[in-house]
Amino acid sequence: MQISASFIFAFALSASLLAQQPPAAPQQPPSRRLEGVNIEHYPQPLESELQSLLQAALSSDYAYRQVAHLTENIGPRLSGSPQAQTAVEYVADQLKRLGLEITLEKVMVPHWVRGEESGALVEFLGQSPNTTQKIVLTALGGSVATPVEGITAEIVTVNNFDELHALGKEKVAGKIVLFDEKFDTQLAAAGLAGEAYSEAVVYRALGASEAAKLGAVAALVRSVGGADYRLPHTGASFYLPDLPKIPFGAVTAEDANLMVSLAAHGKVRMHLTLTPQTLPDAPSFNVIADLKGTDHPEQVVIVSGHLDSWDLGTGAIDDAAGVAVAMQTAQLLKQLHLRPKRTIRVIAWMNEENGGAGSKAYAKDYAADAASHAAAIESDFGAGHPSGFKVNATPAAIQKLKRLSLILQSIGAGVLRYSEEVEADITPLQRLGVPTFGILQDGRTYFHYHHTAADTLDKVDPKLLQENAAAMALLAYTIANLPDPLPR
Amino acid sequence: MQISASFIFAFALSASLLAQQPPAAPQQPPSRRLEGVNIEHYPQPLESELQSLLQAALSSDYAYRQVAHLTENIGPRLSGSPQAQTAVEYVADQLKRLGLEITLEKVMVPHWVRGEESGALVEFLGQSPNTTQKIVLTALGGSVATPVEGITAEIVTVNNFDELHALGKEKVAGKIVLFDEKFDTQLAAAGLAGEAYSEAVVYRALGASEAAKLGAVAALVRSVGGADYRLPHTGASFYLPDLPKIPFGAVTAEDANLMVSLAAHGKVRMHLTLTPQTLPDAPSFNVIADLKGTDHPEQVVIVSGHLDSWDLGTGAIDDAAGVAVAMQTAQLLKQLHLRPKRTIRVIAWMNEENGGAGSKAYAKDYAADAASHAAAIESDFGAGHPSGFKVNATPAAIQKLKRLSLILQSIGAGVLRYSEEVEADITPLQRLGVPTFGILQDGRTYFHYHHTAADTLDKVDPKLLQENAAAMALLAYTIANLPDPLPR
Repeated sequence: MQISASFIFAFALSASLLAQQPPAAPQQPPSRRLEGVNIEHYPQPLESELQSLLQAALSSDYAYRQVAHLTENIGPRLSGSPQAQTAVEYVADQLKRLGLEITLEKVMVPHWVRGEESGALVEFLGQSPNTTQKIVLTALGGSVATPVEGITAEIVTVNNFDELHALGKEKVAGKIVLFDEKFDTQLAAAGLAGEAYSEAVVYRALGASEAAKLGAVAALVRSVGGADYRLPHTGASFYLPDLPKIPFGAVTAEDANLMVSLAAHGKVRMHLTLTPQTLPDAPSFNVIADLKGTDHPEQVVIVSGHLDSWDLGTGAIDDAAGVAVAMQTAQLLKQLHLRPKRTIRVIAWMNEENGGAGSKAYAKDYAADAASHAAAIESDFGAGHPSGFKVNATPAAIQKLKRLSLILQSIGAGVLRYSEEVEADITPLQRLGVPTFGILQDGRTYFHYHHTAADTLDKVDPKLLQENAAAMALLAYTIANLPDPLPR
Repeated sequence: MQISASFIFAFALSASLLAQQPPAAPQQPPSRRLEGVNIEHYPQPLESELQSLLQAALSSDYAYRQVAHLTENIGPRLSGSPQAQTAVEYVADQLKRLGLEITLEKVMVPHWVRGEESGALVEFLGQSPNTTQKIVLTALGGSVATPVEGITAEIVTVNNFDELHALGKEKVAGKIVLFDEKFDTQLAAAGLAGEAYSEAVVYRALGASEAAKLGAVAALVRSVGGADYRLPHTGASFYLPDLPKIPFGAVTAEDANLMVSLAAHGKVRMHLTLTPQTLPDAPSFNVIADLKGTDHPEQVVIVSGHLDSWDLGTGAIDDAAGVAVAMQTAQLLKQLHLRPKRTIRVIAWMNEENGGAGSKAYAKDYAADAASHAAAIESDFGAGHPSGFKVNATPAAIQKLKRLSLILQSIGAGVLRYSEEVEADITPLQRLGVPTFGILQDGRTYFHYHHTAADTLDKVDPKLLQENAAAMALLAYTIANLPDPLPR
């Protein structure tokens, strides 16, 4: 989406770019085509204040400096790690310095620690004497360990659960199962990266238990990601109850290809070592920081990202960027001496990656206040160009944001797209009736880096981060300062 | 470059696409513009045979199957390794099965074996208690080892040798020097990847000795490569005589960024462990396979690639692809029952990557026969689309190939570009006066994968490999069957 050259042109475009109504809403194509010209300005001073916010966001390096500190000076922030704790303290301190009221909401989080990890094919057709073929892999989050000396077993490769079940116990028992489901790079390139992820991630989530049902001794998945740089992608995995827990890892796309190719022509045996540890749950915190509303302090607009990250990279796009743009909403209001009418609450969620303990705890602790949450916004799809927002709200609520949409159209961020679910941390609030919003980032390359060692600071473009900060700040301030709360 | 739609169009284009003359040649732009229309066909049956070869090359999977076997069934083939020996035996056997006369030319090669390798920043600003920041790195070929327990030292970062020398012994002694010279991705994207590589690779080659002059305890370079997937690139390095040999590694671009950023704001100390071993030189072989010429068996046209590879990946684009297309020249002639008038000699060179022992041995062993080498051709720049050839030959020799160039223009491979140097393995022959040719591959992404774990089979596109096989086979057969040897 391009920035429109003139305001008139923006009006002409707006009809097609504004909200896609939720399925239940009546379709009114003829009248909607020109509705852009009928959108009233917001009352002053909101209208002027949004323009000031926009300009300030687009010229600030605050969010980028936050991402840099979280990734370079602190580093990977897996739940329960010392770095996650440092990050909690750092973000709380930064927001306190801005003058916000800080609450550390305690949550118990899983404490899984990566160990040694290695893989090698030790028997295959064409093998040189006394050699192996190295397999690049990583343990999936939550995996149990192999013995320290590893295990050696024949591999069996399948494309999906149907193929696995068709093999049956006889061909699976005692073996290492590789699920070779391929990430759909064409979907991702076409702007449907989230859909491509959803299709493939089921094997990463549940592959171990499905393989264990048939007696497998370990399970591996082809990494869920779209690039070809021999990078393993970690991520959360789960064991179904009442089944053996078997070691579970992700191999790179290249290594999956190799295993499938060799196994198609002969017996392939693999040595696999994974020695992660699951320690007792650890105390951690959501960082909650309020910029109190002048008129309706009890009404809350959440701006958020998640502070924990996976441990292979430094969690720049997943999701230091989200935390940073949420922090910047508060920073910009302070910089411009703007006071929201409703409370703007910055939240740095803990444990999005492997359990969602932070968001569940919040929804529980604040369940009685759900009606006073005007909206919850999260950024958790990287830091690519924002085209607008994913929205879970009523058509009437979306209508109230069309003027904002037109303003953001000047930076190409004018889309309001209805979505059944928005981002993971705010879904518990959505279930309590809170309108939720996610930033609709360009995610075409998001899953190239997601959950890998390559999720590092350089993947964040400072200019695009400014656009994300602008989108979040303007949406939050609009909802906080509209005369009436968003309709529910 | 696109395939031209019609023969007329090819004629019109040919002037600009044909050979760039070497610098010494007189410029004759007006007459050259239309020279394409004046190019005479080769005598029959050569003209028809070239068309048959072209069609056969474009429909064969022979070369791809060879790359698959070398990479998947054999794997990395570093000089002196068991896999390199298996590869020698495999290629010799395959060529023997085609009916070629096999010679294994013995060469002594370096035998360097990678060990453990790890890096971590153990002191830096903002650090969490009891944590480090991981540094992804790899030992450079030929590096000496650290003690098994590693070394810990402060890092100092420089962009180039001038900055290093300006620091002097006082600021360098006892430290780990990082050379942060950046690979020029714009040059590479513009089609000048080789030039970008040349600019950066000097630090990888000589950085350790320059740092050792000032008392550094180890040296690191930013990886020489153009992608951003946290991949370290290995490669050959050298120690100057009479200087301490210090451990020498390559960090990823992302890790170089991190080290430079943290070091700019405070003291950074690093723990570095590299435990490679340099074993005694080992015996190995160039595989030489002759398809004897009918008329001038003593005159030789070499088609070649190098059989050894680095050890991190499986050496698909560097250079199983080159070996495979050279093998395919022989395979196609056998398949079509074509007999070359001069001998076509397939060579799979050993030890291109870290010493060039194979090519040096050949030039020495065959020095007396240099005059009877009609040409030497090598493919060693990956398996991207071939635009034609890099050529080190006289204008008169290039003139003899313009009809071939026009034929290859049908697959977009019609360029003949004069080059001071062609490929490494045939440079010793060039110095003996032999005309040399390299395939001019599209190398825009070559250094994304070069010398990394991601140089794997999937990086070879079967269709583009067919084009490369066609280019090499047609060039070799033309030179072998022209009435006269190429002018020298």
